Order: sequence, then structure tokens, then C-alpha cells
Amino acid sequence: MTQRVAVYPGSFDPIHHGHLDIIERCCTLFDEVVVAVLANEAKKALFSPEERVAMIRELFPGRTQVRVENFSGLLVEFADQAGARVVVRGLRAVSDFEYEMQMALMNRRLNPRIETVFMMPREDYSYLSSRLVKEVCALGASLDGLVPPSVLARLRERLVPRGAGGEGARR
Amino acid sequence: MTQRVAVYPGSFDPIHHGHLDIIERCCTLFDEVVVAVLANEAKKALFSPEERVAMIRELFPGRTQVRVENFSGLLVEFADQAGARVVVRGLRAVSDFEYEMQMALMNRRLNPRIETVFMMPREDYSYLSSRLVKEVCALGASLDGLVPPSVLARLRERLVPRGAGGEGARR
Amino acid sequence: MTQRVAVYPGSFDPIHHGHLDIIERCCTLFDEVVVAVLANEAKKALFSPEERVAMIRELFPGRTQVRVENFSGLLVEFADQAGARVVVRGLRAVSDFEYEMQMALMNRRLNPRIETVFMMPREDYSYLSSRLVKEVCALGASLDGLVPPSVLARLRERLVPRGAGGEGARR
Amino acid sequence: MTQRVAVYPGSFDPIHHGHLDIIERCCTLFDEVVVAVLANEAKKALFSPEERVAMIRELFPGRTQVRVENFSGLLVEFADQAGARVVVRGLRAVSDFEYEMQMALMNRRLNPRIETVFMMPREDYSYLSSRLVKEVCALGASLDGLVPPSVLARLRERLVPRGAGGEGARR
Amino acid sequence: MTQRVAVYPGSFDPIHHGHLDIIERCCTLFDEVVVAVLANEAKKALFSPEERVAMIRELFPGRTQVRVENFSGLLVEFADQAGARVVVRGLRAVSDFEYEMQMALMNRRLNPRIETVFMMPREDYSYLSSRLVKEVCALGASLDGLVPPSVLARLRERLVPRGAGGEGARR
Amino acid sequence: MTQRVAVYPGSFDPIHHGHLDIIERCCTLFDEVVVAVLANEAKKALFSPEERVAMIRELFPGRTQVRVENFSGLLVEFADQAGARVVVRGLRAVSDFEYEMQMALMNRRLNPRIETVFMMPREDYSYLSSRLVKEVCALGASLDGLVPPSVLARLRERLVPRGAGGEGARR
Repeated sequence: MTQRVAVYPGSFDPIHHGHLDIIERCCTLFDEVVVAVLANEAKKALFSPEERVAMIRELFPGRTQVRVENFSGLLVEFADQAGARVVVRGLRAVSDFEYEMQMALMNRRLNPRIETVFMMPREDYSYLSSRLVKEVCALGASLDGLVPPSVLARLRERLVPRGAGGEGARR
Repeated sequence: MTQRVAVYPGSFDPIHHGHLDIIERCCTLFDEVVVAVLANEAKKALFSPEERVAMIRELFPGRTQVRVENFSGLLVEFADQAGARVVVRGLRAVSDFEYEMQMALMNRRLNPRIETVFMMPREDYSYLSSRLVKEVCALGASLDGLVPPSVLARLRERLVPRGAGGEGARR
Repeated sequence: MTQRVAVYPGSFDPIHHGHLDIIERCCTLFDEVVVAVLANEAKKALFSPEERVAMIRELFPGRTQVRVENFSGLLVEFADQAGARVVVRGLRAVSDFEYEMQMALMNRRLNPRIETVFMMPREDYSYLSSRLVKEVCALGASLDGLVPPSVLARLRERLVPRGAGGEGARR
Repeated sequence: MTQRVAVYPGSFDPIHHGHLDIIERCCTLFDEVVVAVLANEAKKALFSPEERVAMIRELFPGRTQVRVENFSGLLVEFADQAGARVVVRGLRAVSDFEYEMQMALMNRRLNPRIETVFMMPREDYSYLSSRLVKEVCALGASLDGLVPPSVLARLRERLVPRGAGGEGARR
Repeated sequence: MTQRVAVYPGSFDPIHHGHLDIIERCCTLFDEVVVAVLANEAKKALFSPEERVAMIRELFPGRTQVRVENFSGLLVEFADQAGARVVVRGLRAVSDFEYEMQMALMNRRLNPRIETVFMMPREDYSYLSSRLVKEVCALGASLDGLVPPSVLARLRERLVPRGAGGEGARR
Repeated sequence: MTQRVAVYPGSFDPIHHGHLDIIERCCTLFDEVVVAVLANEAKKALFSPEERVAMIRELFPGRTQVRVENFSGLLVEFADQAGARVVVRGLRAVSDFEYEMQMALMNRRLNPRIETVFMMPREDYSYLSSRLVKEVCALGASLDGLVPPSVLARLRERLVPRGAGGEGARR
């Protein structure tokens, strides 16, 4: 029996209950879970990588099983350095599935020792995404049950409700 | 028997025959149809929300069953204020379906009294989209049967055919 | 304002909470809902069409808005005779969607005055199907919250738990 | 410039306008089109392989570009013997696509010199299938524009309209 | 660090290289892998459950990490009794994905402590299925690289090549 | 027997082995293959259209069957002027499929004499895309077997590995 470490990568801009559900599921399967926050300069994020890491760490006080780190560069290299053999990704929908399969095959090619496994969030989180959370918050609607209270507070600070905005939730 | 009002939201930049097909179908099912033009500041539209509203209104002269309005903010709030219990969305393809399902579930969470229903346009409009209409027009090709003549005239005014342009229709 | 009648067709072998959720949603949109139980001789059903009709009627005592009928032959003819302009179908998944779209287009061709509209059940019923309900029951597992108690009782009567059986839920 | 022969395989039980549309498209791309009727003993067909071949041949009188043959065994071997390098399949929907991709990959493995290409029927035939044609005919509904008159006559002979039957078109 | 046991269920009628690829991947992630052969009376299998178990055991001589068992009844109960917290399923295609998601959600409802995770076989096994293997073998074609030699020998014994047969590979 | 010319359009920014695989397959089916490089001003490309044309031409020295051209404007007009009746597109995944189907239907409407056919690349190229190639290269990872050496050299020249970058391959 070796120590099983899994990496759960993402933008987490911000983290929401769909992400947290996957992290908790990982905790039942692996000895350590490294939440890997992608420091993506190209994409305009609402929160800096450091803010995102801090927001997630705050949600796991004293939980040594969950480690939260920034990363840039290749995911498979990060996983290797973190001592992980597994990358975990959540699957919500068919469109997720195809993109994820493509990434997983490329990552397998880059490092065949790292395995990608897919997990399903609770079905009532199947429509949740960070993008939607930001839009709905910008429009002043309630996010109860979609993000933890500490995340909600920071979202509200940053996104002063505007009279007009967002996109998705209006459709 | 209560008055049944349905909201049909979209960008309508510009409206095309696939949209008009759905509006006519709505007219057979509901007492009033509110075409809700999304005033989305973030997305660069070819026509202003006011122009889009005017272009649609022109197509329904004297039809009191069809109301055309601008909106910004949450769709479910707009629907509520319009006295509607139903949001109608057209479904063309699997990729539409997943996005629409996600939005419908979020909207249901924001206001469970508003129901989203999906309708199918005529199958020969299944490939139509406002984006494609603009591209094809910019490249100088015919749009007969894809948009009404009045919309075509405004598209041509705005999009002087260029030697090079668009993207999709070249693939 | 005319009376709006919708037909909700299916095998209902047996009815489950995913079906009931759609029926209740129909009741908010239409004046009358005709639950149309397909008397399909080809497919081996667990319950006879008459039993299925009786099981559904029992669930709507005194609700005149919900009518439950057997039918055979073309759905669009049944709908026409029932005074309905609308056929309602629930959409759970992409695979549902394609089959349903195909049927809806054929039905539109057979009778263009009958419109098919699609509605979404609650997301926690997205995995429910009559087939799965029967399998899980045959294996002796709990169906709490998946079918109403009266349906459960009849299922148990008919399906004596066997040591081996079913298929899906074992995967 | 070599002679280009394409095989278009299927059950054709019976042939319908969606199939004919693909055959005509093949005729514009290839020098010869071999319509290959699968003599499948396992599946219960309405028409015998010989009847199906005869029904198709009747539709192409004097057209030497279209050859119609029965086949059993491996498709890639049949194609090889017919002097074809290409197998043509029609794609209507996403569900078609995945199954077809799987078959095409297996066939490529069995004989890498045979290439599978996919073509799209006219969009108003996208909902057509032989199964649906038989069901709708058995229920006594019109098939105008879905199958050629000679095919319709044979279908009617074989399928005496019954009071109850089929499945799909009732949904 | 607890012992991690995973169950990999299926019909395995017969086992092929796509299955074996998943089993090997499981062995890198879990301490023990229980290959659970579904004894499904309803579906006509080519090999009896006992034969299938024997064929798989033969492929893992002396590998104590891989256990092969028959099972009937609920998968989640079998998993529980096997001391497993994880069910592993392979994902090849979108159609797989939806069915698997449905089963995983039902299994989660039946026993929330059992988690389903999905893994991807090598992409060159993406078109492999037991059904296709049997068809292609019945038609007398080569299965090199698709099934292990010992499985191939038993398949050939059972499936005397017939002049006509199968279905899929002829398309 | 007429001369069969096919157009294979794309951005090719840059060309990779998935593209080359399709070109070689086209060469077995058609007398001439015109690789049509889309000069898209809107999309920011890494290489200019001229550079992309040059990179592809370099890969087919002395191969008169393969012609490489820039194009702008409508694809169907370009095809017509090139004497082609066929447009070839590669299909990797379901998401590809729907977009491609939409484009093919629009192109058919713009010029019904041009037929779109779809081909499948080798399954081990199913995850390849120009976007992914650029990302992975920018992160300093190996591209062996994904792009030809001459393309790799130009990619490296242009994309100096940065400490942080890309997006996809980190997931």
C-alpha cells in the first residue's frame, strides 16, 4: 500500500459547491488531494491565483488531506512533482466529456504514468460553473447553496451589482 | 383559463427565419409572446438593442399577440414582470441542448415558478444562426430565404462586402 | 383565449416520479393534460395498459385537469381527437434528445398543427427510467422517492425479488 | 485517373428517400456506386434480401452507374471484391456518428486500404429511417415523399394496417 | 492509509484488450481490483459466467492484486461485500458516457458510500466491444491484437465461421 | 471518368499529423487535393497565411497531386474556381460533427453542386488540434509524432518556452 496522491486541477475563479463536492469525493478515495489552481495569464480571471488559493485554503482549515497550490506549466509535470499518479476531473455533461477526453489523451501522451480519472458531482450541481456564478452574482441574484459564504462575500465585494450585465442567465 | 404569456429571449443580432419560425409556433400555443431582446453590453453586437427591437417590430405590424422588448438583468425577473410563466427556447442541435439545459436549470433555481420549454424550428432552419447570417452576408453571398427582406436590407447597409472576412462559411 | 390541452404520451410501465414531475409542470402551463398510455402489443410490458391507466388515475383523485387514457395508433390522431394542439415530452439526456427530435419531426410531418414541446424534469430525476425502476425493484432494493407508494406496492406484488436478475444497476 | 467505385451498404428494409438522396450524391462523386444489401439472418427483416435488391434495382432502370448486390460476410471483403476503395455511409445525427465511427475504425483495422467516407442527406430527410417508415405505414398513415411509389405499394401489401401497432410514431 | 479496493464490473463476454487495458490502469491506482463478471440470465451470453471467470483468471496467473468473481444482484451490494469503495467503468464514447452517468447516479442513490470513477482505455481500443469481437470472429476475420490468444482460441471453438452472419462489421 | 478534385480547407495554424493523415487519405480517393489555407484576418493566427502555405508546400515536394493555396471569401466559390466538386473535412468528435454539419448544410445551400464529405483521421490523432499543439509547445513539452520536424522547428522559433502560459494541457 503506497500513499495515493491525486491532483484536482482547475481555474477555480471562484471555487463553487460543484468543485467542493468533487474534492470531498476525492478525499474518500485518495490519501492526499492537491487542489491545483491554474495561474493562467491569458484568461482574464476575476481573482488572482493567490486570492483563489487563499479562498480555497480557508475552506479546509486543519484538513491536512487537502493541499492547495498554484501552478503554471504542464499539468503532468506539476502532478509528477507533487508525487501524484492521478489527475481527477469532474464530468457534468457531454460537452465536458469530449474536451476532457482530448486533454486526458494529450496528458497521457506527455506522461503515461499519470492517469486521469473522472468523477461525477452531485446531480443538482450539474449546471454549476464559475462563469455562471459570476454572472448571476453580477446581476444581483442569490447564490445560496452554490458557493460557500466566504466566497460569496468576496464575489459581492468585487462584483458590484450593475443594472445590466452578464449574459448566460438572461437566456 | 388564464392568459398564457411566453417570453422568447435572445440576442437577435439580427433576427432570422429560424427565430421567426419559433415565434409563429409560440403564437399557436400562447396568448401573448414577448420577444425579449437581450441588451448585452459585453458582447459586441452588429445592431444596437434599439435597432434590433425596431427590426423585429417591423415584422409584426398590427400583431398585438407579439410584443417586442429590450431587457437587461435576470431573465426570470423580466419574465415575472412581463406576467409570463414560460420561457421558450429553440433547440437545433445537441450542443444547443446541453447549454440550454444548464441555463434552464439555473433559471429554475432562481425562480421555480418560471418554466422553460423547448421547441424545434423547421428542420431546414436547423443550420441557421445570426453569426452565420452575418458572415455569409459580409462575404457577399445570397441570404434569400434565411432572413426577411427588411432585415437583409439593413444587413447589407451595415456589412459592405469585403474581399476577405468571416470564418465559418469558408470551412 | 382558447382552452389549451396537452397530451403527454408514454409507456408508463410503470409511472415514476420523473413522469409525475413533468405532469405537474404541464398543469401549470396548460388547461388540461391528457396522459396517453401507449397500448403497445409488441413490447412486453410488466403491466397491462388498463393496469397502467388505473395506477396513474389513482394518483390524481379528483384532479379534473389530468385525464388518463389508453391509446393505440398514431399519436397525432389521438392528440387531434383529444382536442390537443400540443404534445409534451420530457428531456433528460442527449440520447433522449435525438430520438425525441426525430419523432417530433415525423409527427410534425404527419400533422403540422400538432406541436411538440420539450420540458425538463427535476435534475435529481434525470437518471430515472421505468426500466431501471423495474430492475432495481426485482433486485430487492429500495425505491423510496422514485415511485409513489401505491406504484411500489404493485411493483413488489409483481416482481418477487429474485437472487439473480436485471442488468443495468449491476454495472 | 482510375475508376472510382464506392460501396453504399445497408439493410434497406425498405429503401427510402434518405437512402436515395445519398445514392444520388454518390453518383456525382464516384464512377460507380454499388448498393450493398446486407443479407442479415439474425435481424428479422420485413423483406427478403432478394426482394430488397429487386426493389432498389427497379428504381434505377438503365442506370449503369448504380449496381445493386446482396452481400453477407465482411463488408471490407465485399468492397475489395467489388473493386471499391470507398465505403459511403450517411450521417443524420450524433448517435449515428458514434456508431458509424466505431464501425469505420474496425473496418479500417480489417482492411486499411478501404476508406469510409460520410455524407449528409438533405436535412428534411434527417428523421427518416426504415424502422419509422414501417411503423408509420402499419398505422395507416401517409408516406408520400418518404418512399418511392413502388416501395410504398409493396409496403402496403405486406403491412395490412392494424388497429394497434408500431411504437415510435406514437410517442 | 487504508487498503483501496476497486470493483470493475461487466459482462466480459468475452474479455478483450480494451477491458485488459482498464484493469492494468486500475492496478496502478488501487491495491486490489475485483473483476466482477455479471451473471445475467436475461441476456444470452456466448460463454457461461463460469467460463468467463475462468478465461479472465487465466490471464492473471499469480497476480494476487486481481481477483475475478461472478456476481448477481445489486452491484453496490457486491462492492460493499468485496470491501470496495470504488466502482470503475471505462468510457469510450459519448453514448457510453450518458448510460454510465445514469447508472452511476442510480448506484450512488442505492449506496452513497460507493463512488463510481471513469477511466479511458487506450484510444486505439476505443472502437472495441465484446459484441463486435464476436461478430468479426464469426465472419472469420482476424482478431490479432483485439483479444488475448487464449480468448481467441475459445472464441474460434465456439463460433465456427459461417458464410453469413453478424451485423455490425458489414456496415 | 472525370478528374476528381477535392478541397481540404482549414486554418492550418500550424498543420499537424492529424491534417496530414486526412490529406493522404484524400490522395487515395481523389485525383487532386487542394489544401485551402483560410486567410482569416479576424482570428489572431501564429503564422501568416503565406507562412502557413509555405510550411505545407514544403511537406509535399514534387507531389503534383497536392496543391496548396490561400483563400478568402466563400469556400464554395473557391472550390468552384478550383474545379472541385468536393469539400473534405476531418471528423474527430461529436462536437466537431455538429459544427461541421451546420457548415456543410449552409455551404450546400450556397452552392448545391459542391458536396461535403467527412473522413476520419487515425484514432491516435483524435485528440490533436493546432491550438493544443501551440500550447504544449509553448510549455516546452515534446511534440514528437504530432507535427513534422520542419513545422516543429518553426513553432519553436516563434514560441520561446515561457515559465507560464497556455491553458488546455494544464487541466
